[in-house]
Amino acid sequence: MQNQISVITLGVTDLARSRRFYTEGFGWRPVFENAEIAFYQMNGFVLGTFLQASLEQDMNRSGLVRPGAFSLAHNVASQEQVQIVLDQLASAGGRILRPGDAPPHGGFRGYVADPDDHAWEIAWNPSWPIDADGHVTFGL
Amino acid sequence: MQNQISVITLGVTDLARSRRFYTEGFGWRPVFENAEIAFYQMNGFVLGTFLQASLEQDMNRSGLVRPGAFSLAHNVASQEQVQIVLDQLASAGGRILRPGDAPPHGGFRGYVADPDDHAWEIAWNPSWPIDADGHVTFGL
Repeated sequence: MQNQISVITLGVTDLARSRRFYTEGFGWRPVFENAEIAFYQMNGFVLGTFLQASLEQDMNRSGLVRPGAFSLAHNVASQEQVQIVLDQLASAGGRILRPGDAPPHGGFRGYVADPDDHAWEIAWNPSWPIDADGHVTFGL
Repeated sequence: MQNQISVITLGVTDLARSRRFYTEGFGWRPVFENAEIAFYQMNGFVLGTFLQASLEQDMNRSGLVRPGAFSLAHNVASQEQVQIVLDQLASAGGRILRPGDAPPHGGFRGYVADPDDHAWEIAWNPSWPIDADGHVTFGL
């Protein structure tokens, strides 16, 4: 099968609060939004923020919990930008989990939780190329 | 900032069990793997499966829980493929959460949990184009 993920959907409890984090913190604009979901067009796929109760109903499972065992990463073009973006996200309703520092495997990264406690890593990883459309390729 | 997510990282407790689901269920091959992580090159970003304890250490936060309030979606080219892929994933160690059926907003979809209880939606959504590289565009 195609190596393809179409959507990452995050369960949120307050769409306006979540929207502020993504629009003011990252500067992203929804391509669609209504009273229960907002979609953002990303680099080859779609990010959705969906009311958690609606996600549970769609998934046919209740009892989703947070913080979940996952993280999303947004890579930036320089080491200096890591802390700048982390601080910008914290100002938009996020909470710093780990200020920017150097991991054992190289590069530079920090973590911030969104208002629903979903973790974002902000990373500078010079060995992973990013093209003009934001498409990211694994590298060593 | 660029609308860009570089990595989706899933916390897993048994890399071999997780690997079986992704390689046999989806047919994807890791581009890198070691004793604590496996990476898969996706459509413009990277999927990582990382030992949960290592993810917690990297994130500087303990107590990640499952099932987390999120889902990932893999879109397929026809309604018929939805149940076929769900069953294939169940045979590779997944657990069906919702057999394929039609949601109120159109198309067709079902959900399956991976061996670490991360939810995957398998969906047929004819209004979201997918190009040959697997890049998915939001549509109505």
